[in-house]
Amino acid sequence: MASPISPPRGMRDFLPAEKARREAALATIRRVYRTHGFDEIETPVVEDHARLHSGLGGDNEKLAYSILKRGLDADALRAAADGGGVASLADLGLRFDLTVPLARFYATHRAELGPVFRSLQVAPVWRAERPQKGRYRQFVQCDIDIIGEPGPLAEVELLSATTAALRALGIDGFRIRLNDRRLLVGMLERFGFPADEHPGVLITVDKLDKIGHDGVVAELRGRGVTASAVDALEAFFRRPQTMEFVPFGERQIRKALPDGVDDGVVADLAGIGLAATAQSHVDAPSLGDPRFARDLVVFDPFLVRGMGYYTGPIFEIEHPDFGYSLGGGGRYDGMIGRFLGQDVPATGFSIGFERIVDVAATTVDEHDDAVVLVHEADADPAVLVRLKSELIAGGVSRVRFERRAKNLRALLDRVATDGFSRFAIVPREGEGDGGDAVTGDRLEFRPLA
Amino acid sequence: MASPISPPRGMRDFLPAEKARREAALATIRRVYRTHGFDEIETPVVEDHARLHSGLGGDNEKLAYSILKRGLDADALRAAADGGGVASLADLGLRFDLTVPLARFYATHRAELGPVFRSLQVAPVWRAERPQKGRYRQFVQCDIDIIGEPGPLAEVELLSATTAALRALGIDGFRIRLNDRRLLVGMLERFGFPADEHPGVLITVDKLDKIGHDGVVAELRGRGVTASAVDALEAFFRRPQTMEFVPFGERQIRKALPDGVDDGVVADLAGIGLAATAQSHVDAPSLGDPRFARDLVVFDPFLVRGMGYYTGPIFEIEHPDFGYSLGGGGRYDGMIGRFLGQDVPATGFSIGFERIVDVAATTVDEHDDAVVLVHEADADPAVLVRLKSELIAGGVSRVRFERRAKNLRALLDRVATDGFSRFAIVPREGEGDGGDAVTGDRLEFRPLA
Repeated sequence: MASPISPPRGMRDFLPAEKARREAALATIRRVYRTHGFDEIETPVVEDHARLHSGLGGDNEKLAYSILKRGLDADALRAAADGGGVASLADLGLRFDLTVPLARFYATHRAELGPVFRSLQVAPVWRAERPQKGRYRQFVQCDIDIIGEPGPLAEVELLSATTAALRALGIDGFRIRLNDRRLLVGMLERFGFPADEHPGVLITVDKLDKIGHDGVVAELRGRGVTASAVDALEAFFRRPQTMEFVPFGERQIRKALPDGVDDGVVADLAGIGLAATAQSHVDAPSLGDPRFARDLVVFDPFLVRGMGYYTGPIFEIEHPDFGYSLGGGGRYDGMIGRFLGQDVPATGFSIGFERIVDVAATTVDEHDDAVVLVHEADADPAVLVRLKSELIAGGVSRVRFERRAKNLRALLDRVATDGFSRFAIVPREGEGDGGDAVTGDRLEFRPLA
Repeated sequence: MASPISPPRGMRDFLPAEKARREAALATIRRVYRTHGFDEIETPVVEDHARLHSGLGGDNEKLAYSILKRGLDADALRAAADGGGVASLADLGLRFDLTVPLARFYATHRAELGPVFRSLQVAPVWRAERPQKGRYRQFVQCDIDIIGEPGPLAEVELLSATTAALRALGIDGFRIRLNDRRLLVGMLERFGFPADEHPGVLITVDKLDKIGHDGVVAELRGRGVTASAVDALEAFFRRPQTMEFVPFGERQIRKALPDGVDDGVVADLAGIGLAATAQSHVDAPSLGDPRFARDLVVFDPFLVRGMGYYTGPIFEIEHPDFGYSLGGGGRYDGMIGRFLGQDVPATGFSIGFERIVDVAATTVDEHDDAVVLVHEADADPAVLVRLKSELIAGGVSRVRFERRAKNLRALLDRVATDGFSRFAIVPREGEGDGGDAVTGDRLEFRPLA
């Protein structure tokens, strides 16, 4: 039965074991990204309300939590009721992603950053989603972004660093799907979808994994978009080579697309895919099965990625054990500079931390020597803390006191599950053969569990 | 000139160098507290609005940010204007401390925790304070709390762990002021202040450090509290032994107080002070000057601590270099169990992280080998990431790419300030004597700075 006193709906507490596991996984992610040249930054959890609702956040803007202005009086409430609306009462909001804050951060600090800035953000975001299994209203995102690098080096760096981070977490067997928004748009044009139908068509195509080719065609027909274009798409779906993702290479990409694609885009995308694939040989030579390595990165001409702001290469990591992507991202050249009124090249990758933390390997610290001191309720605190200090000075990694309980076995079982490895019972002063003083060398440690 | 695009008022961004320094200090604090047996937990940044405003937060409740309910319509706004008030529009709020969330956490999870729970929380809180130098609207608190231990062992553990944490940060020369709320109240009673005047009198006494004995007496006279009691307090202030904090010992404490104090309280408090003092000899034998050690913990009969919820020993850490305390805390037995409707013994200590981070020693990682690869804009990304991977596999701790700039010197100076120690210029393919391929052994590293 749930306690009647709970955290807010859709949000979670983390008890010590879970908190330690999360922090260990985050530390691994931070370490790998830092090694790969990304610099961690932090922004406040709130941003100005108007900035959060400037259109950069897509549908997520609707899920933002808004913060009430302070000192509102009845007049302000009446003005809001009389047409000012809810927004007139809010001046701040909780961020719903780390990208809008990054754009604001970059606008604020551009002069202090190098020409190419590799940003790492590991931080919570908030969305007022309908709570459901595996969806939370506060959750952690791990974002890397490269700002200022227009070429494919940026994408290759993102993919190689993320691949390394996932492997450091013990997660393998994943596959990167790659596409380019420009190829996707070019394909829709080629099939004959007018530009104003593109956003709607992409929303449907985005469901391909769930509803299949026939489902996409049926949904598009139901929506009444240009029929001849749907016919062309359906014919394209029926080509044998469309049924499979394709390994990389310019020729392979071209074969997977209708005629008339942009050669430069294809060449860049092939370069990204081949470099990321080659990289996997260097990073994980033990996984050097050529088939596996070839398949680490695949071209998926129908990968959409939801957000409207993508302008170039887009990518998503999938794993056969999961029905959802482990993370994804893409190039969004128009967005980071929006608050500056400039176009600034940028591309980013976000790991869905909540989706991977449960499968990440927990690092067992073999040097952990955690001990429990069991003491009488009336033991002298000065003696106890002295013993603790002596043990810590001697290299013990954790010391916890436990008051002696009637059921000592139950006590020891409990601390064993908390990761402690040894225990000693603190003798009473004057007890035993050591004379009066209780010193560290009079403690007899026994293993737990 | 400040950028026109800023973080919200009173809040801060952290650029990489500052973020790294903060995380290093937090990691030290976490490590020491964990070693001393505290277990880190995490709660959501928001709590239910009604819970935040249940009276446990004192004046801080007035500074809470409130979060608008989602989906409010014009009727709801009108109802709020017509008497429902602002609170009727909010269902959540940002926490203003870590103690109210801890009380809620404990009520939710008590069955999963041991009889004594040593909690560590390292997390941001929010207060809509008037922005001023050194005061922020989002700031980090580091709280340790011991729940379920009624005896002075809890206080001794808090003080010894916190002392160790501060020293691990390179902060020394501080002093712990100790008092007990019960002694303070007993003293006011003895002087003849009626109980209903106590809260107001304590607010004035709390200003003693700033306005001095005469200032306190003058302010009390101006407030019109019981005149004979103020006379008694003034006479007490004039005793020579009241002018100085006193080292510990039951006799010393008694001498610093009016007659008729509670013997049991004095004995416990003396025990805490003496144990913490003795502890400092074990933890920092190099600081074994008896005078210093005696003064590490002093009895301050007029230490108040602002919050009304304290019920027993209270403490504050002061440092001669700072005009404010570095942290403080106390026993608050009535509060943690409030949401359970029970009294649960609890005592806690909060480090004012923002106050110490600027003086904390920055740990220089001597094993840090951070290298920069300077490359041409048209270098092959596949070659670059291969070089990066090889360097990382070879033990380099950080690799960053920099596009070659016309002013190479400026580039190198900039990356040197980012903590990088070596750089190499990536040769073009086919350049130099190594043939076509650019491999790691063709990189010539030179020291930076």
